[in-house]
Amino acid sequence: MRLISSKEDLLFAVQTAQRAVSLKSPLPILSGIKFETQDDLLITTATDLEVGIKCSVKASVFEQGSAVLPAKYISELIRRLPDIPILFNSDPATGSMTIKYGESETNINGFPVEEFPDVSLPSCDNNFDIKENIFRDAIRQIIFAVGTDENRPVFTGVMLEVKNGQMQMVATDTHRLAWRKVDLDNYNSSDITVIVPGKTLNELSRIIGRPEQSVQVKITENQVLFSSENLSFISRLINGKFPHYRQVIPKELVAKVRLKTRELSEATERAALLATEGSSAIKLDIQDNILVISANAVAGRVYEEIPAYYEGEPMQVAFNAYYLSELLKAIGNEEIDIEFAGPLSPGIFRPVGDEGYFSLLLPVRIKEE
Amino acid sequence: MRLISSKEDLLFAVQTAQRAVSLKSPLPILSGIKFETQDDLLITTATDLEVGIKCSVKASVFEQGSAVLPAKYISELIRRLPDIPILFNSDPATGSMTIKYGESETNINGFPVEEFPDVSLPSCDNNFDIKENIFRDAIRQIIFAVGTDENRPVFTGVMLEVKNGQMQMVATDTHRLAWRKVDLDNYNSSDITVIVPGKTLNELSRIIGRPEQSVQVKITENQVLFSSENLSFISRLINGKFPHYRQVIPKELVAKVRLKTRELSEATERAALLATEGSSAIKLDIQDNILVISANAVAGRVYEEIPAYYEGEPMQVAFNAYYLSELLKAIGNEEIDIEFAGPLSPGIFRPVGDEGYFSLLLPVRIKEE
Repeated sequence: MRLISSKEDLLFAVQTAQRAVSLKSPLPILSGIKFETQDDLLITTATDLEVGIKCSVKASVFEQGSAVLPAKYISELIRRLPDIPILFNSDPATGSMTIKYGESETNINGFPVEEFPDVSLPSCDNNFDIKENIFRDAIRQIIFAVGTDENRPVFTGVMLEVKNGQMQMVATDTHRLAWRKVDLDNYNSSDITVIVPGKTLNELSRIIGRPEQSVQVKITENQVLFSSENLSFISRLINGKFPHYRQVIPKELVAKVRLKTRELSEATERAALLATEGSSAIKLDIQDNILVISANAVAGRVYEEIPAYYEGEPMQVAFNAYYLSELLKAIGNEEIDIEFAGPLSPGIFRPVGDEGYFSLLLPVRIKEE
Repeated sequence: MRLISSKEDLLFAVQTAQRAVSLKSPLPILSGIKFETQDDLLITTATDLEVGIKCSVKASVFEQGSAVLPAKYISELIRRLPDIPILFNSDPATGSMTIKYGESETNINGFPVEEFPDVSLPSCDNNFDIKENIFRDAIRQIIFAVGTDENRPVFTGVMLEVKNGQMQMVATDTHRLAWRKVDLDNYNSSDITVIVPGKTLNELSRIIGRPEQSVQVKITENQVLFSSENLSFISRLINGKFPHYRQVIPKELVAKVRLKTRELSEATERAALLATEGSSAIKLDIQDNILVISANAVAGRVYEEIPAYYEGEPMQVAFNAYYLSELLKAIGNEEIDIEFAGPLSPGIFRPVGDEGYFSLLLPVRIKEE
């Protein structure tokens, strides 16, 4: 391989692929990024065998070829290069790469290219397209509810369902749940229900977001491919059956409160400060258009009043302070409605004026004082 | 205590004092910040028994008093308060503090006030004054050379010497040395030579820096007090004899090179990337107005050329890459001179046009290849 590219393009190609690099794998080759040319493109690839990322940038290619370099060194080096044309020159015999910038050069020893696992992309048709920024924001609204318990893999994923030109995403760790619906511009007729690893969507949300660009989504039996202009992100799917989440949404509501998201969020964060292991519950008392938030802990106690518009029976309910705080941050709307079916049923949180999103949070039992 | 203050003033008072809070002390009281009133001032105090910080802010004081609150909670809480007038109301019977903001309040349990150690300030005259920003910049230029080995306490300190209206500061860990001289505006006639803990000056440099303000420095037998408008910072001194550092400055120079600090600094950082434990040396070859930086490591090798103005014999010398990188960052000047007395004598680094600063770095021996 022999090519010239800019620092900016190289940095983009390396930093994008690097998101798939395995930091803990026992296979040394997975700590590397594969560089290869294809006509006038430089393509970087990395994989941890669960996800794979390919990124391509334009380059002046004089000689086709490939090399696998340790991700850590090559990304740190490119970050520190001067902003001048940079020459990549690989030695097929040793697998090493010489990076030339001005009168200076660094030579980095590589891995054997043939040991790098194949990251091949499915060649089926797209199932649907979605705008990058809309997809990113939707992922950010639900990702907090994904579980972390690897013994229950279904809950570490996000259920992605496409039907009648709409995509729904649902995540739950059984304590909380988040649901987002998005209208699709461009889709084929087949219905989809798959479980995408939460980690996959989390990483994807960090590398997409351009408002004019769309992500194309292809789904096969056990893989999903997200592709955009110069990016391919492939991931395994999670096998299993996602719980019937609709069953846990309370139907018969007894109370509803409307308030400023930020006021509740800030009060919850203050209450969460005092909350410690074993007593992370904060109490919400609602009546007479006042929401009272209170918490008692070893370190002290909090009492906060928030003006609220209230309908229904007086209600006392307690939530885990951290969970409530995370949930409120994800809503991203000025006002919310919280609906209650009773003090032991999940609270339903809805951004006012946005039918396409809600989240649920299970209350915690607190001892009466 | 009963007072009203602003979020901004409270945050300043708490965050400034917090720098002296002991995070690891076995004495719980040292994890607290003392709040006390004095006429229309709120004074915060913290100490780890080595250093003590007092900070005062104006407040509307209705009732004098004092309380000691856990630094962690009170600083996090104030950071999260709304930007409205805040009422502090302490209960002398329990030592707890109620913090009221609007219709809401948090109550934080305190420590017994009488257990808080006395942080008293010496009442002697000032020894000298120095502008906050000049002092801060001087500290930043020498602090990197302070040692960390607690078994050799003298090297964990900075020698501070005042004589004939000039202050000199010197730090060395025996591998490198940094020296800074500052002309003082206002000083008394007594000469001073003391060793101030590096940690003390490092913390001080983070809370001073206003160009119009001066720091007053008072020195007693075993303590130093830095005071500014609303700040008192007291620290123990280190007992012992600072090494005769002038002896290690080479006198008979054989070569001198002048170059752009940033070019050498960036090349050194790239070389340091590849440098690993046991081979962190980078080689400098100087001749014919070119400085060649090279390094060989398991992961690869670097070769960089930097244009330089050179006088003297051709020179080959090797330095620890991390030490050289830190040293160059501290210089803060566009151009530097590096002077050599030979490949095994310390290199002398001087900012061009600034007689008030230099640093030394001992070379490392490298095997000939």
